[in-house]
Amino acid sequence: METAERNGKPRPDRFALIPVFRLKPEWRNASSSFRDMAADEAVRILQNETPGAAANIYITQGLNASADYFLRVRAYDLLDAQNYVKKWMGTKLGRGSELIDMMIGVSKPRHYITPERSPHLDSQLNRTSYEGGRPGFVIVIPIKKSPKWWAMPESARLSEMERHTHQSISYLPSVHRELYHCTGLDEADFITYFETNDLMGFHELVVALARIPEYEFQIPSGHNLLLGTIHSIPEAVQVLCDQDAAQQERTAAPV
Amino acid sequence: METAERNGKPRPDRFALIPVFRLKPEWRNASSSFRDMAADEAVRILQNETPGAAANIYITQGLNASADYFLRVRAYDLLDAQNYVKKWMGTKLGRGSELIDMMIGVSKPRHYITPERSPHLDSQLNRTSYEGGRPGFVIVIPIKKSPKWWAMPESARLSEMERHTHQSISYLPSVHRELYHCTGLDEADFITYFETNDLMGFHELVVALARIPEYEFQIPSGHNLLLGTIHSIPEAVQVLCDQDAAQQERTAAPV
Amino acid sequence: METAERNGKPRPDRFALIPVFRLKPEWRNASSSFRDMAADEAVRILQNETPGAAANIYITQGLNASADYFLRVRAYDLLDAQNYVKKWMGTKLGRGSELIDMMIGVSKPRHYITPERSPHLDSQLNRTSYEGGRPGFVIVIPIKKSPKWWAMPESARLSEMERHTHQSISYLPSVHRELYHCTGLDEADFITYFETNDLMGFHELVVALARIPEYEFQIPSGHNLLLGTIHSIPEAVQVLCDQDAAQQERTAAPV
Amino acid sequence: METAERNGKPRPDRFALIPVFRLKPEWRNASSSFRDMAADEAVRILQNETPGAAANIYITQGLNASADYFLRVRAYDLLDAQNYVKKWMGTKLGRGSELIDMMIGVSKPRHYITPERSPHLDSQLNRTSYEGGRPGFVIVIPIKKSPKWWAMPESARLSEMERHTHQSISYLPSVHRELYHCTGLDEADFITYFETNDLMGFHELVVALARIPEYEFQIPSGHNLLLGTIHSIPEAVQVLCDQDAAQQERTAAPV
Amino acid sequence: METAERNGKPRPDRFALIPVFRLKPEWRNASSSFRDMAADEAVRILQNETPGAAANIYITQGLNASADYFLRVRAYDLLDAQNYVKKWMGTKLGRGSELIDMMIGVSKPRHYITPERSPHLDSQLNRTSYEGGRPGFVIVIPIKKSPKWWAMPESARLSEMERHTHQSISYLPSVHRELYHCTGLDEADFITYFETNDLMGFHELVVALARIPEYEFQIPSGHNLLLGTIHSIPEAVQVLCDQDAAQQERTAAPV
Repeated sequence: METAERNGKPRPDRFALIPVFRLKPEWRNASSSFRDMAADEAVRILQNETPGAAANIYITQGLNASADYFLRVRAYDLLDAQNYVKKWMGTKLGRGSELIDMMIGVSKPRHYITPERSPHLDSQLNRTSYEGGRPGFVIVIPIKKSPKWWAMPESARLSEMERHTHQSISYLPSVHRELYHCTGLDEADFITYFETNDLMGFHELVVALARIPEYEFQIPSGHNLLLGTIHSIPEAVQVLCDQDAAQQERTAAPV
Repeated sequence: METAERNGKPRPDRFALIPVFRLKPEWRNASSSFRDMAADEAVRILQNETPGAAANIYITQGLNASADYFLRVRAYDLLDAQNYVKKWMGTKLGRGSELIDMMIGVSKPRHYITPERSPHLDSQLNRTSYEGGRPGFVIVIPIKKSPKWWAMPESARLSEMERHTHQSISYLPSVHRELYHCTGLDEADFITYFETNDLMGFHELVVALARIPEYEFQIPSGHNLLLGTIHSIPEAVQVLCDQDAAQQERTAAPV
Repeated sequence: METAERNGKPRPDRFALIPVFRLKPEWRNASSSFRDMAADEAVRILQNETPGAAANIYITQGLNASADYFLRVRAYDLLDAQNYVKKWMGTKLGRGSELIDMMIGVSKPRHYITPERSPHLDSQLNRTSYEGGRPGFVIVIPIKKSPKWWAMPESARLSEMERHTHQSISYLPSVHRELYHCTGLDEADFITYFETNDLMGFHELVVALARIPEYEFQIPSGHNLLLGTIHSIPEAVQVLCDQDAAQQERTAAPV
Repeated sequence: METAERNGKPRPDRFALIPVFRLKPEWRNASSSFRDMAADEAVRILQNETPGAAANIYITQGLNASADYFLRVRAYDLLDAQNYVKKWMGTKLGRGSELIDMMIGVSKPRHYITPERSPHLDSQLNRTSYEGGRPGFVIVIPIKKSPKWWAMPESARLSEMERHTHQSISYLPSVHRELYHCTGLDEADFITYFETNDLMGFHELVVALARIPEYEFQIPSGHNLLLGTIHSIPEAVQVLCDQDAAQQERTAAPV
Repeated sequence: METAERNGKPRPDRFALIPVFRLKPEWRNASSSFRDMAADEAVRILQNETPGAAANIYITQGLNASADYFLRVRAYDLLDAQNYVKKWMGTKLGRGSELIDMMIGVSKPRHYITPERSPHLDSQLNRTSYEGGRPGFVIVIPIKKSPKWWAMPESARLSEMERHTHQSISYLPSVHRELYHCTGLDEADFITYFETNDLMGFHELVVALARIPEYEFQIPSGHNLLLGTIHSIPEAVQVLCDQDAAQQERTAAPV
């Protein structure tokens, strides 16, 4: 898994746009040859980083009532991410999709668990890495924190985040996570992003985090949780552009 | 009634997807012969377990303003359940349906009422089984629990769940129930699932559970309660694919 | 006014389905002769009790932004009520209507004000009957009660309901009321149903009930209040199926 | 400005229906001659009081994302107001409009500030009249009051309303106001209605009223605030039925 | 950047309308020549101040799930702003757009930080000006304040606003801000408006303001935060009216 943090030394502030799409009903009626062309175009765009921006694609079809897929577009300059999304929306597949949600965040260096403020946990975190193999599932949980959270003294927030980290650390070998900050850019305050092969372990992690005081400060963010599956770019595009066997039968059908 | 728990020793973690559908307006205009083909296809899929997944179908038409039916798709691997839903959505009936909600949960062994923690209630539960005959009604009540619930010490939660069990147990001969856990996979924390022939008894059970402290910890889950009817697979599919007598009259009608 | 309670000895548990409908835009374009046929069919169905179920129809057109009419379908067996709704939705008028809400409730014998628990109020209630003549207005107010209500000891709830009854009783000669219980079957806990000719008196009744503690336990129910008018079945159907004079003028008009 | 209160002695209870409309997209495509006919018809209906009912029309187009105009229909009998709304919806303009909200209220004599209960303020109110000239703006603010408000003793509510009146009185020469009661007839409890030429003064009035305790008892009403402009009937209808110069250019255009 | 405050001495009360638009799906199908005409018309209107009103245009496409662009129309008389919006909606581009939100506010002289009440901060504010160069980003955050805020004594509110100003002042060289008051005119109480080139600095400013007590008084406003990009008028119009390269390819395509 290629992530920003692992590409050598990234610049510290990196924007992410997460546009969420639903396939339009008309998409199903497109011809096979048009969909093949759409798939080629989509793969070409997703595989070749455009200047300043790169994107991943995730499938939610079959797991979500309103979304079929979402992108995670990352760029050092938000304009590049914006242009990427606009470019995607101009493609054949993008034009066959309806944009139903958008999250905006930015990655920052760790704020609480640092060598200065929490040296022991910091080094524990640094020693812990994801060992779960190529992950098959992605979960995005946007979070807003209540005024009470923000009003707490820094030391109290640090102490809660230490507890949070303590509670999480044993799950990190099987759950890869990333954090984006949103305050002022989005209705949410944070986008928590997870990849895993171990959904039950992930579920247990979230239950464990519900049992510590930090959870009491979470309020509705204006976005829904997303659970999706991770595929290679050609596979993911194929899921969206393919017609399955059932489709063959229905060629002559009126609905 | 065939349920996971009764199929010999199930693997402990079993996923359930509950996709909720509304028939599209166009569906009513499909020809009789197309609908017959759709019914055959739907019955064939529902009756034959596809590798790793099985599904039940329930009718909400006539009882619900937005939903006509829902499925409960169960699989040991969430990918198999996802593929089942996608396959359903590719069928003639699935393509005549709009997906309006989706719940995701996982069954787990009992957490509170176990031989170790609550031996008396555990053995009472084990001795109590549903005796109400083939059930005609299904009720799905998704639940989210407040941060206060999760923040309570384990012993306090155990004590509330003992009270919950105590309050429920006399109703279980006439109300079959199952529980799915959702935290981290869905906006809800739990999906409570019931089958019964005795709607008044079920109503009294829910009133009884509203009178104990556990109820104070329930908050909106992002999903609506579902009340539906249970039929054999061919009957349920027939309800959705049939045109009644009134339909005959309207053949020549302009609306 | 014919109501369940007055038909000799009713069976104690009687279900009510309240489906709420909006006329589709296409309905206005149906031909006069089609609408005449639709009206005949609708009157025939509403006037002849089908096995196990009967329904009333109420007009909200001109009083409600989204609803044009609603039914109140009553049956001893919920399946009969469900079938009635499905049958209605298959009629010409039903197919010209969009179902926009559904409430489900069940009548039960009085729980609090009984000869045993509150003999004085019970006999007062029994001596009080509606004397307002054929009522012209219907109001449906669905109610959910907060966890705090359900957590109160039975004696405290009895005492609040005695106060509620005391506050209501002087209005009952001009306001007919019925109560349906919903807990577990619907998002609401109760459907309060009123018929009256004296809207100002009804308004004063609701204000009076807002001034007692019981009101503090009411929380949003997931349904909207309905205010409608009561007509004979042929009149009500006529309101929905007729084209008024203005319609004549617009025959040649493009909008 | 003609209002109910000024037409000699009105009967004490007068109903108001406030239907809120959005022009349909198709309306813009109607021919000039059709729109001229629609304008004539609309002016004729609005200018001639039909038996028992009269209506004003207000423009929100250009000030509101979803509404283009609203009516305020007043009648001593709610049935007459209902029939007026239905008649409007059958006109050419009404059929080119979508009904998006409806408020229902009733005027009553003052409850708190009366000669008996608050003689000084009562006579102050009676001596104060609107002097702002023909008003150009209308504002409708629907209000629901919390259970805590209704639970307060009458004397405490009187004292809050005296404070409210004290806070308002200096603004009344430039802000005309009316009050409708809704409890039991609508989700709101009150519709406060204002006409003014002095929007900044009106804004300061609402700020002043936010600073007294009564404001703490206001909760969401289920309706949105409406800000509109007041015109003569022919002018208002013209705004809705006219095509501006830009329209001329676009005759040959494809969008 | 030209703003009201800098155009010599503005009249103290200036209205702003912020209509938010989504391009209709049909817009994409308009011909190149029609879109060129639409662009010319839009630029002409935006560049020439019409009597009494001027507008800016901002792009949200690619950053927002539902909005493609918004205007900020300013006028000393709200009627002029209303007429501007109506005129815009009559243009080719306006008719290709759907109005999805509208905010209404008015600028006023500073209320708390004045030479009399807070002389030190007032002169600090007056000495601080935006030095960030032509800004590329715009952020609009509508705010409603809780009854508790309004109920505080003036001195307490002053003290909170001094803290707010103290917290903000170091960010103002890189973040230009304006404030509009809405109480009584809109569901919100304030529209806070920002322009910047330094999104990370802006994010840090909002985080800093979340950490002071004033933040606890903010409640949902009924509007969403808007994040957009700032362009010259011809550029912004071009973004909305242009077809990119991908469009060329799809000329013959069926979706």
